[in-house]
Amino acid sequence: MIHIEYKHGGDVFGAARSLQCHPRAIYDFSANINPLGTSPMALSAITDNLDLIRHYPDPRCAELRAGLTGYLNVAPEKMLLGNGASELIYLLARVMGYRRAIVAAPTFTEYGAAVTIAGGAVHEVPLLEEEKFALPAPRIRKALSHADVVFICNPNNPTGGAVKRPIIQSIIEDARTCGATVVVDEAFIDFVHRQEQYTVLPLLDEHPNLIVLYSLTKFFGIPGLRLGVLIAGKPIIKKISAAKDPWNVNSLAQIAGAAALADKEYMAQTRQLIWRERDFLYRAISLIPGLNAFAGEANYLLVKIENPAITSAQLAGLSAGRGVLVRDCASFSGLGNNYIRVAVKNRAENAVLLNVLREIMKGVADG
Amino acid sequence: MIHIEYKHGGDVFGAARSLQCHPRAIYDFSANINPLGTSPMALSAITDNLDLIRHYPDPRCAELRAGLTGYLNVAPEKMLLGNGASELIYLLARVMGYRRAIVAAPTFTEYGAAVTIAGGAVHEVPLLEEEKFALPAPRIRKALSHADVVFICNPNNPTGGAVKRPIIQSIIEDARTCGATVVVDEAFIDFVHRQEQYTVLPLLDEHPNLIVLYSLTKFFGIPGLRLGVLIAGKPIIKKISAAKDPWNVNSLAQIAGAAALADKEYMAQTRQLIWRERDFLYRAISLIPGLNAFAGEANYLLVKIENPAITSAQLAGLSAGRGVLVRDCASFSGLGNNYIRVAVKNRAENAVLLNVLREIMKGVADG
Repeated sequence: MIHIEYKHGGDVFGAARSLQCHPRAIYDFSANINPLGTSPMALSAITDNLDLIRHYPDPRCAELRAGLTGYLNVAPEKMLLGNGASELIYLLARVMGYRRAIVAAPTFTEYGAAVTIAGGAVHEVPLLEEEKFALPAPRIRKALSHADVVFICNPNNPTGGAVKRPIIQSIIEDARTCGATVVVDEAFIDFVHRQEQYTVLPLLDEHPNLIVLYSLTKFFGIPGLRLGVLIAGKPIIKKISAAKDPWNVNSLAQIAGAAALADKEYMAQTRQLIWRERDFLYRAISLIPGLNAFAGEANYLLVKIENPAITSAQLAGLSAGRGVLVRDCASFSGLGNNYIRVAVKNRAENAVLLNVLREIMKGVADG
Repeated sequence: MIHIEYKHGGDVFGAARSLQCHPRAIYDFSANINPLGTSPMALSAITDNLDLIRHYPDPRCAELRAGLTGYLNVAPEKMLLGNGASELIYLLARVMGYRRAIVAAPTFTEYGAAVTIAGGAVHEVPLLEEEKFALPAPRIRKALSHADVVFICNPNNPTGGAVKRPIIQSIIEDARTCGATVVVDEAFIDFVHRQEQYTVLPLLDEHPNLIVLYSLTKFFGIPGLRLGVLIAGKPIIKKISAAKDPWNVNSLAQIAGAAALADKEYMAQTRQLIWRERDFLYRAISLIPGLNAFAGEANYLLVKIENPAITSAQLAGLSAGRGVLVRDCASFSGLGNNYIRVAVKNRAENAVLLNVLREIMKGVADG
């Protein structure tokens, strides 16, 4: 068993140091990245344009922006490109100076962290296990009058639940009457079946209090390059742009992102793989004594440890000791010390995960 | 003649769009990048590790940090890695909340911009042409009592002048008695002959009010990847680290940076080339009627247009129309509309620049 010191998932470099092995030898189920690896068209584009790193990046991200306009159907001037979505979350919280944010917890911890660092207060509206962690839209709407911003992660991380557009639309409209903004993080929406029923991008033009976050790192397999998008009306984009440094998006992220958006075959293969394997993994985990998986719409599953003889930190540590990283969810507000999150990967990798989970849970049951 | 809309140098992508050519067809003397291109060892390391972009970056930057500790002789915990030095300048100004900054102008414009955006005031101490734009240490020391921070770029951008360590040390010591911090930007110090007499890194342990900025993008030819370093005592590093997002340095920048620091042959070749060509270019420009170059210690030269019939914007536009970018210095506070800055490149490229400058200035003289 090794100690996992880093609070986020995906720390293969830290794990490799602890295990004294190469990062490539780690099975990383703690980060939610496309199991097909990086888009082949993105990889080719990087290789073909590697000499361009001797120049400063294009500060306008013109080629990538054009690709995103086609892919997301959003006007170029309504997008702000970032060094990963996390840069944009911090930038947003700081520039907009939100005083009181509503967060539906458990969710991605960076929303609350960014608001807190910027001097604002965070009010958590809990997702309830007895409601299968569904978004509590009525409770959020009730809390709106005391907030200037609401963060909604759709599908939600780490629970995997997704809500359809009309539900969020009603929150956005209520928020508007209260003078509040709604930030919808669609970082994992490309993995959702029938995502067109879920994305709020079509609401953008009519709802000036809507901000959408989008990420290319998970679906297109480029988390190491960093690439996020903030989508909003022009006044918000202008205000945030003025506060950022000029060359925040590196050249290879721009090149890889633009190429990946044209990789239709990879996108289709990814969706087919994830939808099939998510179902497989959900059923298989639920069959392991002491574990219970929650159905999810993204490329990861939340798993509850029902056996009180082992905590999530202990399970994650034992698993990491065998070279398999899972995400201990104890650092997510609203979850206890008995939840883990696992990424959906290919069948061979999922089989490795299942074997390790079975062995660990059997060892616990046998005492 | 084309219109240069972007205020910084190095915008080959924008120029290529205006000229309807490929960025590779542009001669870019407007950005100060190593003319040898990216370090070959850095390029190999990127190619060999391209598959690692499917993982999140190492948030600790462990390998790069170890390399920098050896190269700069600075303890690992005294460094903060950034997405280019410009990210670190903005982060620094914001987190430290400087109220009144002294800037010796003309200098890199981002110091003042970052302080202003963070709500502080900027007081400029002018470098004077009649003093060959030398750092006015006595005037800076006199202004210290009204400031909480002083920014010194060494060698200075765009003038190219460098000051030896004892002069900056006296400013640091005076600043300390006033409770002020001194930020020394050594982004171009690797190009300086006998740089060990100039760098203030040896002063770090004894001077808690010293912050040093360092960049790997210029000397090692990786501006497209972004990689900067902020070096300071542990309390400052801790404070700034707490406010940054977790994965700000992308994987390939970390990999390229670590590899480049071991590329001794490239470093030696670079210095030999720059020292020889800087001298050549300085003499050759000074022979062009209507132009006057200032001697400099970095990989660029400041050039004054002595003929009032053409402004720096006109010269830069005419030159760009021929595919040769030079930096119009009109946006640097303290310089008028008759200065340009040119990078030092290899002999063949420098010859192209000289031909274009000669033709333009001859055209002006001929009316």
